[in-house]
Amino acid sequence: MKIIMNAWYVAAWPHEVASGAILSRTVCNLPMVFFRDGDGQPAALEDRCPHRQMPLSLGIPEKDHTIRCAYHGMQFDGTGRCVEIPGQDHIPDGARVPTYPCVERHGYVWVWPGATDRADPALIPDIFERNDHPEWSAVGGTIHLRANYAMLADNLIDTTHETYVHAGSLGDDNIQANPIQVTGDDQHVHVTRWILDHDAAPLWREALNQDGNVDRWQLIEFRPPASTVLDVGVAPAGTGAQEGHRSHGAEGCNLNFGTPETEHTTWYFWSFARRFRRDEPGYDEVLQRKFADVFAQDSGAIEGAYSVMRRNPGRPVVNLRNDAGTIRARRLVEAMAEAEEAGTRPAADHG
Amino acid sequence: MKIIMNAWYVAAWPHEVASGAILSRTVCNLPMVFFRDGDGQPAALEDRCPHRQMPLSLGIPEKDHTIRCAYHGMQFDGTGRCVEIPGQDHIPDGARVPTYPCVERHGYVWVWPGATDRADPALIPDIFERNDHPEWSAVGGTIHLRANYAMLADNLIDTTHETYVHAGSLGDDNIQANPIQVTGDDQHVHVTRWILDHDAAPLWREALNQDGNVDRWQLIEFRPPASTVLDVGVAPAGTGAQEGHRSHGAEGCNLNFGTPETEHTTWYFWSFARRFRRDEPGYDEVLQRKFADVFAQDSGAIEGAYSVMRRNPGRPVVNLRNDAGTIRARRLVEAMAEAEEAGTRPAADHG
Amino acid sequence: MKIIMNAWYVAAWPHEVASGAILSRTVCNLPMVFFRDGDGQPAALEDRCPHRQMPLSLGIPEKDHTIRCAYHGMQFDGTGRCVEIPGQDHIPDGARVPTYPCVERHGYVWVWPGATDRADPALIPDIFERNDHPEWSAVGGTIHLRANYAMLADNLIDTTHETYVHAGSLGDDNIQANPIQVTGDDQHVHVTRWILDHDAAPLWREALNQDGNVDRWQLIEFRPPASTVLDVGVAPAGTGAQEGHRSHGAEGCNLNFGTPETEHTTWYFWSFARRFRRDEPGYDEVLQRKFADVFAQDSGAIEGAYSVMRRNPGRPVVNLRNDAGTIRARRLVEAMAEAEEAGTRPAADHG
Repeated sequence: MKIIMNAWYVAAWPHEVASGAILSRTVCNLPMVFFRDGDGQPAALEDRCPHRQMPLSLGIPEKDHTIRCAYHGMQFDGTGRCVEIPGQDHIPDGARVPTYPCVERHGYVWVWPGATDRADPALIPDIFERNDHPEWSAVGGTIHLRANYAMLADNLIDTTHETYVHAGSLGDDNIQANPIQVTGDDQHVHVTRWILDHDAAPLWREALNQDGNVDRWQLIEFRPPASTVLDVGVAPAGTGAQEGHRSHGAEGCNLNFGTPETEHTTWYFWSFARRFRRDEPGYDEVLQRKFADVFAQDSGAIEGAYSVMRRNPGRPVVNLRNDAGTIRARRLVEAMAEAEEAGTRPAADHG
Repeated sequence: MKIIMNAWYVAAWPHEVASGAILSRTVCNLPMVFFRDGDGQPAALEDRCPHRQMPLSLGIPEKDHTIRCAYHGMQFDGTGRCVEIPGQDHIPDGARVPTYPCVERHGYVWVWPGATDRADPALIPDIFERNDHPEWSAVGGTIHLRANYAMLADNLIDTTHETYVHAGSLGDDNIQANPIQVTGDDQHVHVTRWILDHDAAPLWREALNQDGNVDRWQLIEFRPPASTVLDVGVAPAGTGAQEGHRSHGAEGCNLNFGTPETEHTTWYFWSFARRFRRDEPGYDEVLQRKFADVFAQDSGAIEGAYSVMRRNPGRPVVNLRNDAGTIRARRLVEAMAEAEEAGTRPAADHG
Repeated sequence: MKIIMNAWYVAAWPHEVASGAILSRTVCNLPMVFFRDGDGQPAALEDRCPHRQMPLSLGIPEKDHTIRCAYHGMQFDGTGRCVEIPGQDHIPDGARVPTYPCVERHGYVWVWPGATDRADPALIPDIFERNDHPEWSAVGGTIHLRANYAMLADNLIDTTHETYVHAGSLGDDNIQANPIQVTGDDQHVHVTRWILDHDAAPLWREALNQDGNVDRWQLIEFRPPASTVLDVGVAPAGTGAQEGHRSHGAEGCNLNFGTPETEHTTWYFWSFARRFRRDEPGYDEVLQRKFADVFAQDSGAIEGAYSVMRRNPGRPVVNLRNDAGTIRARRLVEAMAEAEEAGTRPAADHG
């Protein structure tokens, strides 16, 4: 899938861009350097000194929240402006580093690799708010995925894979038998699956922390190009979860962003927010480890499939009933890519 | 050398395709997955699930001798037929995996990567029978060779290299001084070398297990595209070996198959069968180790030469007297490749 | 920068081509094998046996100062002539290995990869003589640099980088403030920088081994395609160093040759000769280690910049005042490359 430039992407966790730290990361084929400017806001510059093309990410973080190039000492602030050239007073016009719009929101650092004048922070998906919300506790991590970013949403939208990929944690034989409902518009795909009155999968049994059959929900929202949020959980069977009474159950939210590094590699930022067992000492660490395992399993499957796909470009596949959501999501991304290529205002801008 | 598709290739040792095991191996650029079907026969399928292109070799071997895809659970038998799709009863037409003709014979698993209707098992070279014969004991191994498959026969047919590559085991200064005789037809090359009345090379001295000068034979048969069998051994000098009386000597048979993985890499299956010291405890292990060393030396030489060859495509070489066999063998393979490219029935099919 | 073939290049240190040793090294994309011939002179042959293309560098050094190919035993002398073919008396015309002009001078082994008839040893730059001179003591080393060879001279000619790349050894804040003078002709670039009456940088303080402010000189001579020699040192401030009285100071000479291995990789031979603290036991080892660190820092900077440059072919950079020398040097190399491409006698030949 082609990379879409005019969109907000998760670029980093805030702690990766701590004060005095310099982060190098490539987003949408663009090498970027991230640091905090004088106001404590994250800044994203091209990772290239305009003098002799040294990566600025190898530079020296100065106390005034600028970066000094490690080669011949040119110094730049968070707006890309050169504030000092060793050995001369005159700052030539070319002594400037391109920047990318960059904001911190919902516990992520976001960057907009495309046309700067379209970078409205209001377009950042609000559904990510549960990553940094007083009523939720979140764990999360980053995976460097050797696959095109579109493979990640394929994985997340069709939860049939849980039975096979996550046997022993999230998976059990009750999932695939329950059909999905797919709805949406030109900006969203919603996939809903309910698994009623069954023995809970091991990880959910532990989350709920009580015996007895459960009702399990998987309410998925995909937004192009690369965000997938899963409202998931279990409640004791027949206690009204399907009608909306869920707060007595184990409520979770799995937030996923697949930021293209290149066409063939993806920075996968996952988090899992919860409203169960929030105050229990050590439980964050337990869940961090368990979900890191889960998403590593997904990554293995995605990379395996992608390696085959790359040697079979354009070769047809057989679609199954449970692919209805992923097919619809792919179409939205394709439409966005086509609109961007045609130079028309991409759909995401309509917000 | 171009890869020939319409031929039987050694794909694996039988123990690599044990019951309940799944083997992934690429043959002639085709990624394949091998397993035992319900009859205990080896099966070779394309290593790709038709649903979302997951490698089937990452799948789950089921008790009914089928493979289940590890991603969304589609289940296939040894004929490539889908026998179950989780979440739906209807099996669509596209839910089928291509297969390759595959048989077990002479202690090898053979596969035919080309046109299925030409895959007659009677074409499998009978000269490999000594790998699995009551009168012979065989050791063997597999080497992943970073070279075109034709380089392997070049190495094996000109035994002059033994003096330099295998000094201290098979080599000594008596080999290169003795001329070769080359004969053959459009399906075979035969190279014969006799080294009479000389002090045995160390490995042959040990094989014969007695003092005194020996007569040594090297009777080589090459068949295109990729099999080379060496009838080799020593007997006490002047005891009639050249006239055919060899059973009192140390009789060996080195069987070699170079299966193309890609144009530039080869699965080299070697074995060494013998009629000497057969019942001696521990001697299998001794020979296994010694011949593994010998063929690793060959691989080093082949890979060294191939790396130079790749940066010199088409550059002429000087041919020596002892190249008469390798040149003739190359011509047979080239003729087979040209016939296959021309779409005519390749020579191998005439059996 | 294009590789220039008609020039002398440093190929090795003499100890790398010891008697009985075989060295494999690629120079200007040409794989070469180096060894000592019967006269003890270094010889450079193509690293390829003309028989089956085995690298001769994997061969066997014979006692008569020839190389025997490790595959089928052909034997070659330092002129590339085949002196033995196992198994036959006739030496065919094709049994010959191309050679490259190769001489030992100034403590280096030099090779000429271009047109043999232009390889006049008188063209070897005499300014390298201090590497092997009774009045100087030299330490040196080799770095495999993942960058085009022209990046090395860029680094060496603009010593502004010392403040940032070599902080704590050669660098201090006094360097960049002092302007450079640039002169030259069509064969040389001279860059001069004097840093007067300042506290010495740590490594120079140790070299001089006395207190008090110093005058520091950096007198750089570049010759295309790839040699850069820095006459450097410090003397007590105001004692006439700038007028030529330097022998009471710490006089050093840093000799650098960047030999292209490929377009993107370079063999960097550095040495540092000195006329200070020459007889002090253990000081060679101290300086060897310190300068190895210094040039490893340069290599890191060069490779960082080159990796960015490769993804930005042809993209403009901003030039600063201190780039006057590097720009002039680049022009000389470009002119040499253009002359060679045009088939005219390259400038270096006028020597």
